[in-house]
Amino acid sequence: MTRIICQQVAPRIADLAANRVLALDAIRRGVAAGAELLVLPELVTSGYMFAGREEAEAVAITSEHEVFAEWAAAVAGSAGSPSAVVVGGFCELGADGNLYNSAALVDGSGVRAVYRKLHLWDTEKLVFTPGDLLPPVVDTTAGRIGLVICYDLEFCEMSRTMALNGAEILAVPTNWPLAPRPAGERAPEMIMAMAAARMNRMIIACCDRTGTERGQEWTAGTCVVDESGWIVATPDAAGMTVADVDPGAARDKAISARNDVFADRRPALYSFVSRTP
Amino acid sequence: MTRIICQQVAPRIADLAANRVLALDAIRRGVAAGAELLVLPELVTSGYMFAGREEAEAVAITSEHEVFAEWAAAVAGSAGSPSAVVVGGFCELGADGNLYNSAALVDGSGVRAVYRKLHLWDTEKLVFTPGDLLPPVVDTTAGRIGLVICYDLEFCEMSRTMALNGAEILAVPTNWPLAPRPAGERAPEMIMAMAAARMNRMIIACCDRTGTERGQEWTAGTCVVDESGWIVATPDAAGMTVADVDPGAARDKAISARNDVFADRRPALYSFVSRTP
Repeated sequence: MTRIICQQVAPRIADLAANRVLALDAIRRGVAAGAELLVLPELVTSGYMFAGREEAEAVAITSEHEVFAEWAAAVAGSAGSPSAVVVGGFCELGADGNLYNSAALVDGSGVRAVYRKLHLWDTEKLVFTPGDLLPPVVDTTAGRIGLVICYDLEFCEMSRTMALNGAEILAVPTNWPLAPRPAGERAPEMIMAMAAARMNRMIIACCDRTGTERGQEWTAGTCVVDESGWIVATPDAAGMTVADVDPGAARDKAISARNDVFADRRPALYSFVSRTP
Repeated sequence: MTRIICQQVAPRIADLAANRVLALDAIRRGVAAGAELLVLPELVTSGYMFAGREEAEAVAITSEHEVFAEWAAAVAGSAGSPSAVVVGGFCELGADGNLYNSAALVDGSGVRAVYRKLHLWDTEKLVFTPGDLLPPVVDTTAGRIGLVICYDLEFCEMSRTMALNGAEILAVPTNWPLAPRPAGERAPEMIMAMAAARMNRMIIACCDRTGTERGQEWTAGTCVVDESGWIVATPDAAGMTVADVDPGAARDKAISARNDVFADRRPALYSFVSRTP
């Protein structure tokens, strides 16, 4: 079993110093609670509602920044305490001068992977450059971990690709703007996460944020979904979301005596080119 | 607006004559209630829990069978009453001698399309041959209609392909065997339908069945989901499920000032080949 802890916190817009403390504290609390995989929100180092590109640039960091050395030290473990893995979002300054809405996967050895969001939401398009590489699947002490960011998860191709590439757990740093929904319903993003988990028999850990930022409210929809598509954890009053999951179950794609969600696919037939007239 | 009516009925196993009456009655009641698109369950002509291939073969029909002429006559309309479209499942005897778990789309002119289920569930594999063609998208008086059958919908590639091919409404004849789920949760198949509808901005009309057949219980999860992913109709006491939907809304793929669920895709990057070690 793997203990996943998502820390639903409220980053402060354009305040790298404050968010650095916030993230490090969230990681330390998660490690103390036994986390083997910690997930933090999208853009946890920077906040989300930038006034414009300049404001984002002022808090953008590279993946070499000492923030990540702090994260690595916090999850590194010591004699008697195993190391953990942390996935969190950050505002990345690329070597090309572009800004990316990125996520880093960090373990005790340092930054293992950086992924640049492929599908940008609304005004993100005014600030960030979209990535041009699929996210990696990383072998870690907590299992094989894929990552996508927020709106990426609304493209079934992304969860499918991650699962086919071997991800047992999909870590999803997110900032879900509060969207209208009928009374009594879950947030639509949670429903899409549940469907993606069940279709792929993959554990999905979404870490959303809280707080109101420049008038924007958030869904605060943090959840861990198991490989059968059921939500097994949501945040406690402090935003901590704890789930003990079984990556081994996510490797088994059988769902009946004669069915397997991967083997039953008909990839030679599917068509992904729009033929809409 | 288009009025969709799904008729959640209980076919009788291996009794073509009884099911013919059942289906025709369901169509007539639906037309009388103003249906422009009627959806019937999977294998409505035959029932589902076959003892073996021989029993299925005894009630298998071709798409030329007079059952479909009856359906066409029932939806044909007359002066003052417009024609309707019906989609329903049947046990098909192919010209090749194989049996297929198929669905027909029929309007007043007769059979417009036949689709053979691509993804077979469990013991269906002992009776049926899987199809080898994608389902069509058919231009009808009720809108552009795609069709898939039951387990097909658990492959996100199918709903995506139908939407990209222009389907505004996805008709889903189904027989959902009752599956375990946590208290208070919807059937997982309904959750997957909701996610597929929202991701693709496509209306999805699932027609399930009722009754216990040779010990098998069914979910009775019939629902119409709108293009925002919300369930807008479930069955009344008689199994009739009525929804007035807007195919025009399903043609509009915009979801924010700068986002469009199709235009935002990154098809050059997605990978659908399993690389699982």
